[in-house]
Amino acid sequence: MANTTVHKTEEKFRDLTQRITSYNEAIGLMVWDLRTGAPKKGVEQRSEVIGMLSSEVFKLSTSKEMKECLDSLSDPSLHSDLTPITKKAVEEAKQEFERNKKIPEDEYKEYIITQSKAENIWEEAKANSDFSMLQPYLEKLVGFKKNFVNYWGYKDHPYNTLLDLYEPGVNVDTIDRVFNQLREAIVPLVKDVVDSKHQPHTKFLFESFPASKQQDFSMHVLKQMGYDFKAGRLDETNHPFAIGLNPGDVRVTTKYDESDFRTAVFGTIHEGGHALYEQNISDELIGTLLCSGTSMGIHESQSLFWENFVGRNYSFWEHNYDSFKSFSNGQFDQIKMDDFYRAINVAGPSLIRIEADEMTYPLHIIIRYEIEKGLFSNQMEVKDLPEIWNEKMKEYLGVQPKNDAEGVLQDIHWSGGDFGYFPSYALGYIYAAQLKNAMLKDLPDFDQKLREGNLLPIKEWLTKNVHQHGKMKKPIEIINDVTGEGLNAEHLIKYLSDKYRDVYKIK
Amino acid sequence: MANTTVHKTEEKFRDLTQRITSYNEAIGLMVWDLRTGAPKKGVEQRSEVIGMLSSEVFKLSTSKEMKECLDSLSDPSLHSDLTPITKKAVEEAKQEFERNKKIPEDEYKEYIITQSKAENIWEEAKANSDFSMLQPYLEKLVGFKKNFVNYWGYKDHPYNTLLDLYEPGVNVDTIDRVFNQLREAIVPLVKDVVDSKHQPHTKFLFESFPASKQQDFSMHVLKQMGYDFKAGRLDETNHPFAIGLNPGDVRVTTKYDESDFRTAVFGTIHEGGHALYEQNISDELIGTLLCSGTSMGIHESQSLFWENFVGRNYSFWEHNYDSFKSFSNGQFDQIKMDDFYRAINVAGPSLIRIEADEMTYPLHIIIRYEIEKGLFSNQMEVKDLPEIWNEKMKEYLGVQPKNDAEGVLQDIHWSGGDFGYFPSYALGYIYAAQLKNAMLKDLPDFDQKLREGNLLPIKEWLTKNVHQHGKMKKPIEIINDVTGEGLNAEHLIKYLSDKYRDVYKIK
Repeated sequence: MANTTVHKTEEKFRDLTQRITSYNEAIGLMVWDLRTGAPKKGVEQRSEVIGMLSSEVFKLSTSKEMKECLDSLSDPSLHSDLTPITKKAVEEAKQEFERNKKIPEDEYKEYIITQSKAENIWEEAKANSDFSMLQPYLEKLVGFKKNFVNYWGYKDHPYNTLLDLYEPGVNVDTIDRVFNQLREAIVPLVKDVVDSKHQPHTKFLFESFPASKQQDFSMHVLKQMGYDFKAGRLDETNHPFAIGLNPGDVRVTTKYDESDFRTAVFGTIHEGGHALYEQNISDELIGTLLCSGTSMGIHESQSLFWENFVGRNYSFWEHNYDSFKSFSNGQFDQIKMDDFYRAINVAGPSLIRIEADEMTYPLHIIIRYEIEKGLFSNQMEVKDLPEIWNEKMKEYLGVQPKNDAEGVLQDIHWSGGDFGYFPSYALGYIYAAQLKNAMLKDLPDFDQKLREGNLLPIKEWLTKNVHQHGKMKKPIEIINDVTGEGLNAEHLIKYLSDKYRDVYKIK
Repeated sequence: MANTTVHKTEEKFRDLTQRITSYNEAIGLMVWDLRTGAPKKGVEQRSEVIGMLSSEVFKLSTSKEMKECLDSLSDPSLHSDLTPITKKAVEEAKQEFERNKKIPEDEYKEYIITQSKAENIWEEAKANSDFSMLQPYLEKLVGFKKNFVNYWGYKDHPYNTLLDLYEPGVNVDTIDRVFNQLREAIVPLVKDVVDSKHQPHTKFLFESFPASKQQDFSMHVLKQMGYDFKAGRLDETNHPFAIGLNPGDVRVTTKYDESDFRTAVFGTIHEGGHALYEQNISDELIGTLLCSGTSMGIHESQSLFWENFVGRNYSFWEHNYDSFKSFSNGQFDQIKMDDFYRAINVAGPSLIRIEADEMTYPLHIIIRYEIEKGLFSNQMEVKDLPEIWNEKMKEYLGVQPKNDAEGVLQDIHWSGGDFGYFPSYALGYIYAAQLKNAMLKDLPDFDQKLREGNLLPIKEWLTKNVHQHGKMKKPIEIINDVTGEGLNAEHLIKYLSDKYRDVYKIK
């Protein structure tokens, strides 16, 4: 192909992906709006609009034009003619194209309809705490996903193909290894924590803290983190989230619980971590398919880094405790910094993943992972999930749900067909600890910086090593380049063990 | 064409227009978002997205598919086979098709992007009171519109073609006639008012009224008007507006000036009038091109009806004055209802259109009309607008702006490329007075209803006669059907003359 033809095709490809990203930005804003205050009576019509725009995205990603661009631009003899961004974007689009093309259109439609029904039924089933209502839908969804895995093909284990959707490059063997390590370390640690005679006092955590003051403090912390309010905004929702519409518009939402400020404070820091990632992706990637976080796991490494390694750190509160007190109603005036620190790090077995502390959180994920793996290797069946769930809860955490609502029905993910997603939460946590360890080589005075409220060098380090690359680097590439090693759970284990032996004064 | 073929074509046409209205809904939300709090740094990219989606609308409206549908469905022999909605929708789409086909696609896209950028620059230019910042954008926009008029063609006067976009059926001759009548009646009335010895006391209008209380009162009044908060929401913006995304999602914005509650109160009632129109369009029209107000003038007749004939009416305040007082800081406790009424109807020359009283308001419009007519007949140039503006203000109103912010930069319209729009405000005012006159035949106890706070019969009358029809009726058809006459400025002139002779005790 002559050089001018290449550039013409490159331009055509860029135009196609710009249209896709534009649709996605519009869809993103509509989703944000639906969750932050769209009028109820407009919701049905708005859903139609979102559906219409989503199907345009699907059409473009699988169009004849797209195929022509991809066929031309993936010609190996051209590689020296293409910019690194184009090369990577073509790879990304090709993977998407092939995934979408391999599923028969009617089956995909059927899947989308089932998914949407299942999400609705899930709400009802959870309200009634009745797994049997959801069971037939889950069975269908698992069936669909098994078919998809067959269409897509798999290596070694069918579940690997699903993992690859959320965390490319990670497989069952790797996860088995690190999750076993984690479980073996955390289960006895939880026992020690439960048995400790030094349980933190926590009563003052639950005293009234006005929502508007929580909002002020949330904004104060976001600013400290380097979140750019000229490229974002903070709103209130029932289920907090962060959404990147483009790097100049990355929004955070949080929830204010007047009888537990931790929901807002740690929720905001968590979502703020996601948002910093999206705000600091290189401008060069705007309008390409590479302008977002590279994987769910790396995204979660950013939110958990800020939430846990910064937000639950003693030094962070040395700097912020006084101003935090000034936002409150005075309930902390008599509480010493040490007692406050121990209280916000209270830990122990619990039933609900999203309310779990940072020590037991990985166990919640491991349970879900083992179940998903069991389903896709045909060693478990959907109908047995409540029983399996409850057994595993007892085995790993020593607690047992009273009903399905606080057990197997607690998360929406499976009703949305999202199998393979859960492991990212724990992988992200492992990555975060690895990043923290690597960061210490460049910023050995990390804790001192927290004490000074000087968080910008931390944000800048993350931008340089993670944020800016968007999808230009695969997850494991980022971790390798930064830490010089692969996935390694040791850093997280050491962090949890050191911290909780200290907080609970375990010998 | 066989009957089944007709129905197939009808379906295809419906599908096309549904896609167009979906895009328009997404664009509408993005516009609302840009004005209510989108982060500054995302604006440029958002403008690109709006541009892209608008160009999709443009493509669909001018597509081969659309042409085929329109050619088939406008066949006169089919008229008995089509529903009245389809017939009207085809007419509408055909007009749109012919307008759009005549503009080169790239030029239209460029126009949309310029427009979106100019609206943002306008805010800055106004804040800096610097017309020169906006001038190059305005010149481009006028250039675009002159080209468009050439593509479209015109009859008698180039400006007629622009008028037709906002108020179909009205032309320069008609407007010259009624605006002259208005000017000849109002200019001497203004003199009498200025010369009157009975000037209302107004000091208490400017005492501090907390924004949050103004918001509460605004919501109270919107509810009284029958505005449905399950199908809408109230937000704060610099330049208040109402926007209908679909009849289940019609949003109002207002502005809170703590030292002048009138901005919010009358602004909210005004925008609420627009919103009632959009909320009460028949559900049958959702997804068609007929699901919006029929013209800017009829739209403005609704907002001005509520703002002036209801909101500035003595009887309305007889019902609301006590509750209004309870929202305030107590500054009205010693003020008698009569004095309050005269104060909120204080009138006289002023600089800012949206703050102008209802008597001088038409003069502000007439100035803009004359400037637009001048620009499009090449008798004026953009660079001279500040000077021309100031001269006309002096001639008609006897006042002169200190700077561009309170002069030529005060309105957003021209930055949005909306030339031909301004006359609708005064036309709407004329229509509103005509509608009020007709309404009295059905609701002779209009004032009594206001005194009782029973505004729903008024809303229902307007829904029956105006709202529900959407674009099923042309503006002048509505006015004819309801009033039995054409455009007639006499009712407005009589209203203003009677009211201000009373308020100012002019013999």
